[in-house]
Amino acid sequence: MPVLYHFPLDPASRFIRLIMGELQMEAEFIEERTHERRREFLLLNPAGELPVLVEHDGQVVPGAVTIAEYLDETRGLVLGDRRLLPEAPAARVEVRRLISWFGHKFRAEVSEPLVHEKIIKRLLPAEHGGGAPDPGAMRAARANIRYHLKYIAHLLRQRNWLAGDRLTYADLAAAAELSAVDYLGDVPWNEEEAVRHWYATVKSRPSFRPLLADRLRGVAPAAAYADLDF
Amino acid sequence: MPVLYHFPLDPASRFIRLIMGELQMEAEFIEERTHERRREFLLLNPAGELPVLVEHDGQVVPGAVTIAEYLDETRGLVLGDRRLLPEAPAARVEVRRLISWFGHKFRAEVSEPLVHEKIIKRLLPAEHGGGAPDPGAMRAARANIRYHLKYIAHLLRQRNWLAGDRLTYADLAAAAELSAVDYLGDVPWNEEEAVRHWYATVKSRPSFRPLLADRLRGVAPAAAYADLDF
Repeated sequence: MPVLYHFPLDPASRFIRLIMGELQMEAEFIEERTHERRREFLLLNPAGELPVLVEHDGQVVPGAVTIAEYLDETRGLVLGDRRLLPEAPAARVEVRRLISWFGHKFRAEVSEPLVHEKIIKRLLPAEHGGGAPDPGAMRAARANIRYHLKYIAHLLRQRNWLAGDRLTYADLAAAAELSAVDYLGDVPWNEEEAVRHWYATVKSRPSFRPLLADRLRGVAPAAAYADLDF
Repeated sequence: MPVLYHFPLDPASRFIRLIMGELQMEAEFIEERTHERRREFLLLNPAGELPVLVEHDGQVVPGAVTIAEYLDETRGLVLGDRRLLPEAPAARVEVRRLISWFGHKFRAEVSEPLVHEKIIKRLLPAEHGGGAPDPGAMRAARANIRYHLKYIAHLLRQRNWLAGDRLTYADLAAAAELSAVDYLGDVPWNEEEAVRHWYATVKSRPSFRPLLADRLRGVAPAAAYADLDF
């Protein structure tokens, strides 16, 4: 059975968990704490980053973008016209542009600082940067998310889904980032009604259920995190 | 004719220039300074990042990884068994893993800080972070490159090229990063003979010539930058 090394609140891991859910892949999920720099894990991915997929034949596939492309190539075709990375080159450009937007820009400006300050710093020993969250970093991230919600709303004025007229990797990449921030209670949903509506639709999909069941020891999710009618 | 918006010492732009050279693509090249945040450029790529390809039919393709995938899908097949993103899923995993390694890890740890400190800070006004280079940041990057050269040497002990037995995107991604650092004279070539040998082979390809002809106003390249016998 394939194995996915992941961390529950890591948005990159969540992106791949959503894809695997859409593909109805059976898999084993192993929680990895990359800051422990476990030797066996570094042998799988010398970059030391999550997620990492180990295929049933032993093939190691490290990194969210590489896994997403790999799953499209090896399993995506069975979805037919619901394929999550569409066929046409121009459509693929838009999906990949948005995967990069959310996986790099949103990550760096919003989800990475919030998850780091509120979660990772609790897990780290003080000599490796652990400790109390930095209020300045959290304030900046909470300001940045407003700009990103406006950008998603802008896309949804032209389209039903983020990259066009159907669900693609772009929606899953965006929802994965937002869901990690939502666990922490830091998405101002009342500011952009169209974004809330789109997120409610994605959140209602069966592929989302395992994410909504995540519970981190010592950090309860925000009240409406698992609520489909938030 | 296709247009590539690029900056001469930007490693991501160099990666795409090398691919276009390998594909023998005719194109117009326009130098863009992203820190100016030119409105017309932001309309092409809201992320404000280089490179951006505008196809002859007007299709906009933003970002190095998205452009690389797009060029493989639209022009890669003509290369036959010299295709730069190989056919087999496992081989594609290794190429994409290394594109990410060099485009994210090497970039963040080595090329981005060196180009930023030595080049970009000269172009920026003081109120936007311009000024003298930070010796601490440069020292850290010059220490980090040693670890990356060892990693490349490690790969070359098992293979002729970085991702396997022939030239792929992985070699071009790595050479693009190294070439920007080499312009600045910060690659300690004498430390890893196998890496120097591999780089000399890539540097001798016709696709590399335009990069070796780059000259930044006010910053001359290191003495051996354009020397094929360095």
